[in-house]
Amino acid sequence: METRRNLTLHTDLYEINMIETYWRQHVATRKAVFELYFRKLPFKNGYAIFAGLARIIEYLEQLKFTNDDLDYLKKIGYQADFLNYLAQYHFSATVRSVPEGAVVFANEPLIQVEGNIVDAQLVETAFLNFVNYQTLIATKAARIKNVAGDDLLLEFGSRRAQETDAAFWGARAAYISGFDATSNVKAGEKFGIPVSGTHAHSLVQAFGSDYAAFKAYALTHRDSVFLVDTFDTLQSGVPAAIKVAKEFKNQTNFLGVRIDSGDMAALSKQVRYQLDQAGFEDAKIYASNDLDERTILNLKMQDAKIDVWGVGTKLITGFDQPALGGVYKLVAMEDAHGHMRGTLKLSNNVAKISTPGKKQIWRITRKDDTKFKGDYIATAEENLRTAGQIELFDPEHPYMNQTIRDFKAKPLLQEIFKHGKLIYSQPKIAEIRRYTATALERLWPEYKRQLNPQEYPVHLSRKLYQQKIALIQQIHQTL
Amino acid sequence: METRRNLTLHTDLYEINMIETYWRQHVATRKAVFELYFRKLPFKNGYAIFAGLARIIEYLEQLKFTNDDLDYLKKIGYQADFLNYLAQYHFSATVRSVPEGAVVFANEPLIQVEGNIVDAQLVETAFLNFVNYQTLIATKAARIKNVAGDDLLLEFGSRRAQETDAAFWGARAAYISGFDATSNVKAGEKFGIPVSGTHAHSLVQAFGSDYAAFKAYALTHRDSVFLVDTFDTLQSGVPAAIKVAKEFKNQTNFLGVRIDSGDMAALSKQVRYQLDQAGFEDAKIYASNDLDERTILNLKMQDAKIDVWGVGTKLITGFDQPALGGVYKLVAMEDAHGHMRGTLKLSNNVAKISTPGKKQIWRITRKDDTKFKGDYIATAEENLRTAGQIELFDPEHPYMNQTIRDFKAKPLLQEIFKHGKLIYSQPKIAEIRRYTATALERLWPEYKRQLNPQEYPVHLSRKLYQQKIALIQQIHQTL
Repeated sequence: METRRNLTLHTDLYEINMIETYWRQHVATRKAVFELYFRKLPFKNGYAIFAGLARIIEYLEQLKFTNDDLDYLKKIGYQADFLNYLAQYHFSATVRSVPEGAVVFANEPLIQVEGNIVDAQLVETAFLNFVNYQTLIATKAARIKNVAGDDLLLEFGSRRAQETDAAFWGARAAYISGFDATSNVKAGEKFGIPVSGTHAHSLVQAFGSDYAAFKAYALTHRDSVFLVDTFDTLQSGVPAAIKVAKEFKNQTNFLGVRIDSGDMAALSKQVRYQLDQAGFEDAKIYASNDLDERTILNLKMQDAKIDVWGVGTKLITGFDQPALGGVYKLVAMEDAHGHMRGTLKLSNNVAKISTPGKKQIWRITRKDDTKFKGDYIATAEENLRTAGQIELFDPEHPYMNQTIRDFKAKPLLQEIFKHGKLIYSQPKIAEIRRYTATALERLWPEYKRQLNPQEYPVHLSRKLYQQKIALIQQIHQTL
Repeated sequence: METRRNLTLHTDLYEINMIETYWRQHVATRKAVFELYFRKLPFKNGYAIFAGLARIIEYLEQLKFTNDDLDYLKKIGYQADFLNYLAQYHFSATVRSVPEGAVVFANEPLIQVEGNIVDAQLVETAFLNFVNYQTLIATKAARIKNVAGDDLLLEFGSRRAQETDAAFWGARAAYISGFDATSNVKAGEKFGIPVSGTHAHSLVQAFGSDYAAFKAYALTHRDSVFLVDTFDTLQSGVPAAIKVAKEFKNQTNFLGVRIDSGDMAALSKQVRYQLDQAGFEDAKIYASNDLDERTILNLKMQDAKIDVWGVGTKLITGFDQPALGGVYKLVAMEDAHGHMRGTLKLSNNVAKISTPGKKQIWRITRKDDTKFKGDYIATAEENLRTAGQIELFDPEHPYMNQTIRDFKAKPLLQEIFKHGKLIYSQPKIAEIRRYTATALERLWPEYKRQLNPQEYPVHLSRKLYQQKIALIQQIHQTL
């Protein structure tokens, strides 16, 4: 395994400057609660798949200012007393998170950091960097999986990923959401994801012909998938694949052929015909070439004979929306008298006003059903397990209010670190993947469709809503 | 400094499988030449800025299968004899590259790997992963710099970057193309880029008011830029900033204020007025909020009073085109008789047919002028330094042919590694940045404009073109 990296300085400079202010102003030990959430679902999707927690755990376990870090901070102007403080710094906050692979929605606190203001401030940039990317890719992958159904899905994006970590963690996020394998060997090693891949055009060019290259490959590998479009798919590639599959059937399992260019709908049918005619009805047709959920859907509509989809660029970069706008906001802070008080940031845009106070997300199901009925965001003190009923309260549409009895409520935020100590037992990647598959089954289809999904109900508790309104009014009075 | 990572397994599985085939088929020591290029400029821009070489050097210097890597490869099914071969593997190819920061164009070989087929094949995925991302971001940054002119540009994208490496290497790419600083502290440490940042909304929330927060910051920092939009920019933020700047002028240099929301054009003028009225004519206005070259251009057209631009998401992800489609193609291969022969991949799409043979790019200027006249891609044997004239030959538009005398020709591909050994002395990041600035000055404005730039002339030598046509015909005959 690669050595885990210390990423303590993977932070915006302003975090360090704020920490210096807190420390010099003697408020560094005041308690604070920050929450990480996004305001809008990516890709106009009806849900998102949360990912990034494993990375956060890895990061927090290495969090410490090294001597090199301190030397650098000295060089850019920080003073010795503050550097001594940083040298002794260790993370001691409590971190709660929804489980990786969870189905989540806009404005839900996905991660909650409760600790002193310094702890909570320091980790902002890294947490956002990890969660924004991995959640984006897990969500994109789920959209693709939704269209591909039970077809095999391979993640092929490393060469177009935005640098190295994106290739690794993107492969992992895709696997969580139902991809079956990645081409990236390091991602396989690092996370235990199945890896996949046979050969490129260069093998065919190097051996000078389809036949020579496929033969060389067949003689040296137990399983073969031949890339057939280097020169001419139907005239040369597939005939050579068939010839080699027959001649060397004792040396290799001929699994199928891959097409990487041309009109996939038409070509795949002709390739299927050629393979069937030669008696290779079980051979699979792999396709790869700038695929995403739209092209896969369209190819399926055209009855393309494609069994396995290799998806690269459009997945690994979240091409049509390459950033999730997750934010990390201070929602409560200890005042000079030791009381926690809610905090918010005002905005002309109401959607951008954060909701103050430490929260919990409850996922509601009816007692007689496993489907998700809706989510309920409440103050951390409200306990829905012991509540006889829930008031689904909609401040903007009061006529929509309803009361539910006979429900089950499950809290989504779980403790991961308690006072700086990891107390969470991380599930294996295969478990996370199953958890996601199950969660998606429990989501009604209207929230899952590719185009114009329904909005899943996410309610605020009346208490939380009233706290928010009271605080907005209070701030307006002081301005 | 962080320990350099061994990224040998940061490769697609098919590279390993092809290497096994080459090795078992006894062609592993045959010579091959691969070239890395892209077919289309990103963002409909008129040029690209090449970046990624420093990363490639770092990668190649660590390239070696570790015992952990070999254990993993064994686990996924590779046999002991092949693993022994990999255990002894060391990179021994010659690598040529255009300098980092160079202005480059479509279909120009940016990197050339000449060595045995195994060396050249192994590095494909990583080279593409590094160059595709870094060149994309350097190009995006150059577009933004082009609009921002001499205004200060700050890279603020870490929280939205696609995972960690993108934050670091993206910050570096932006700096090469003219950004002045990054918010990412690790990028500052790693690359010696200036870092920048003061405080976030959370500081204001934590202290409960603009005034209390700005005062706390002013008392603890030599330089202050106050973020003024937490509650109300004009009513609370700027007045508090002015008050603190006056009261604590002996404790801090008040550099200016930052606006992160609202109508930037209108707000910035009102903020400017408030600052000027208070006697702070020198205080700068910083802006940040989903900026890119389009919004900056529009804000400038509206005469917004913004001095410093903080650019995040749209830069660090190359938002409107988050992937550069660079490819890495085998262009020549040693045959069984020890002769190098050109290779290509056919395609129905002529633009996708690679040009065979090892090449050099020559950048042409007139003797009496420093502006770039055009580029000339020739076979590696052609030497333009000793040629009396160049025929600018255009196979598609023969009437455009012209002959130039009185020119200077400079080869762009330089040797970086010779037979596996680094022989290139890497320029410092500040030198690379100056090199880019100078190169952009030497590019005529018609190639630099944001919208509908002219196509910069890139010619193939007649010899190269004829080799390509001959090879296409030869392949067609064998199909």
